[in-house]
Amino acid sequence: MKKALAFDIGGTKIYNTIIDETGAITEEVEKFSTPKTIEGIKEVLKQQIEKYDGKFNIVAIATAGAVNNENSAVIGSTGNLVQGYYTIDFQSLSDKKVFLENDANAAAWAEYRLGASKGTDISVLLTLGTGVGGGIIINNKLLKGKSGAAGEMHFKMFTDKRRKCTCGSWDCYEAYASGTALKQDAEEELNNPNITTYDVIDGLKNGDAVMTKIFTRWQNDITAGIIGLANLFDPDCFVLSGSMAQFIDIKKVEADVNREIVTSPTSIRLAAAGNYSGMAGAALLALEKFKSVNSESK
Amino acid sequence: MKKALAFDIGGTKIYNTIIDETGAITEEVEKFSTPKTIEGIKEVLKQQIEKYDGKFNIVAIATAGAVNNENSAVIGSTGNLVQGYYTIDFQSLSDKKVFLENDANAAAWAEYRLGASKGTDISVLLTLGTGVGGGIIINNKLLKGKSGAAGEMHFKMFTDKRRKCTCGSWDCYEAYASGTALKQDAEEELNNPNITTYDVIDGLKNGDAVMTKIFTRWQNDITAGIIGLANLFDPDCFVLSGSMAQFIDIKKVEADVNREIVTSPTSIRLAAAGNYSGMAGAALLALEKFKSVNSESK
Repeated sequence: MKKALAFDIGGTKIYNTIIDETGAITEEVEKFSTPKTIEGIKEVLKQQIEKYDGKFNIVAIATAGAVNNENSAVIGSTGNLVQGYYTIDFQSLSDKKVFLENDANAAAWAEYRLGASKGTDISVLLTLGTGVGGGIIINNKLLKGKSGAAGEMHFKMFTDKRRKCTCGSWDCYEAYASGTALKQDAEEELNNPNITTYDVIDGLKNGDAVMTKIFTRWQNDITAGIIGLANLFDPDCFVLSGSMAQFIDIKKVEADVNREIVTSPTSIRLAAAGNYSGMAGAALLALEKFKSVNSESK
Repeated sequence: MKKALAFDIGGTKIYNTIIDETGAITEEVEKFSTPKTIEGIKEVLKQQIEKYDGKFNIVAIATAGAVNNENSAVIGSTGNLVQGYYTIDFQSLSDKKVFLENDANAAAWAEYRLGASKGTDISVLLTLGTGVGGGIIINNKLLKGKSGAAGEMHFKMFTDKRRKCTCGSWDCYEAYASGTALKQDAEEELNNPNITTYDVIDGLKNGDAVMTKIFTRWQNDITAGIIGLANLFDPDCFVLSGSMAQFIDIKKVEADVNREIVTSPTSIRLAAAGNYSGMAGAALLALEKFKSVNSESK
């Protein structure tokens, strides 16, 4: 069976393992702090590529940032990654084919093949973490757009410039639906810059009225964005992924969305493809795209 | 050459003509006031189907309201059309195949085949009239969604319930980007319920400062929505269609959009497929879908 050497390159951590054609992880997952330099990132990749030499047919990288339609390079801004990250020539790091996909797109593909959106035709994945990522699948294909950057969750929640977004613009969905946004909601409500998302989640779990109110506002903002996306894409389902998704009242959001949309009812689901869905999705996409790659797998 | 008997059924008017495989109109376009009853609408259709008997191979209807993925029925709410409109069995009106498509989707297809988005892979059409319609083309196909209702321009411009939308919800794009919205903007600004969109447009043309300010707010709201759509779809272009599109400063909107988006630059274009793009698009879609239909054309 063909195998991919899979990486997930994020702003904080790089994960790495081997994944086979079924999406199964066949080696222990390794974790590295993301180096602060381009050379440092290349070093980590090269070292792992060398370590697993002979055990994989292709390199599959899920990465922060938009990836071009040839799956060969990161394009444009990558937010929390080192400046110039997009200049890395990933293919030069291995004599095997190197395949890249945006991490949210890769996660959407893993959910579609193995997880919560399996069996659906049209799905929208939202990764709710430090930021908000999006991966959209329409009739068996990832929505990539003309340059590969489609699915960016930067549509406006207000048009009167209330909250700056990491993208440089104002009032994007990411600025209201991310974990960072929940902290900001709490800071504003409590006039306390030291409050954390953990404080809010703890308060929610303990039935604290103020924390519950803050959390509910954040959840309602997530719902508001999903309503617009449901009317645009008319999807079978939404998949909520990322570290913040677990706290959301899925049934409540689903009911609220279906009460407001003009399209037919949709379903909201928690991600089910596991913690390493970015790597799994990138590996599956890579192995599907390059089925004819020469096998050197043992 | 095969021909379609084409209709465009809107809230106010029904248009009808014959259109061939190249999109050319081969008979004079007839216009009817849309009857206020289901029976009345069926009567108009039946009368024209009879009139052109033997001159067409298929009936192609562009209609207000979402159309199912089989192109056989209108589903769900149709806003300004008679109640129960969706219960009409359109196929029963002719012994030829009857093909339906949403009017904005049909217009998007006409622009893609004949007009402003010809030669592009990914485009978003916005019809700016009494309401706002949307038609999205991704890699040679209309985005239809699971039920046929995709492309509804009901995403939120605010999340704090400022303006009621015709869909029953609050603050949808349609409530800020339509001609009706421009009138409402003017009413609010001038505290005058009798002001019309014509007054605003006249004032704009004559360089009136207040009317220009009102118009600019409206145009900026249109821009704000396009920014979100550009980040979601990463399209080659947007096509602005409908009665209000002609007043928009296309180059200004394009510059404003490209300054804010995180995806690569897109272009904003005025519709170019003519006044009857709904009928042309429906006819082309119908003739493309049913190429094997028996010819009775003269």
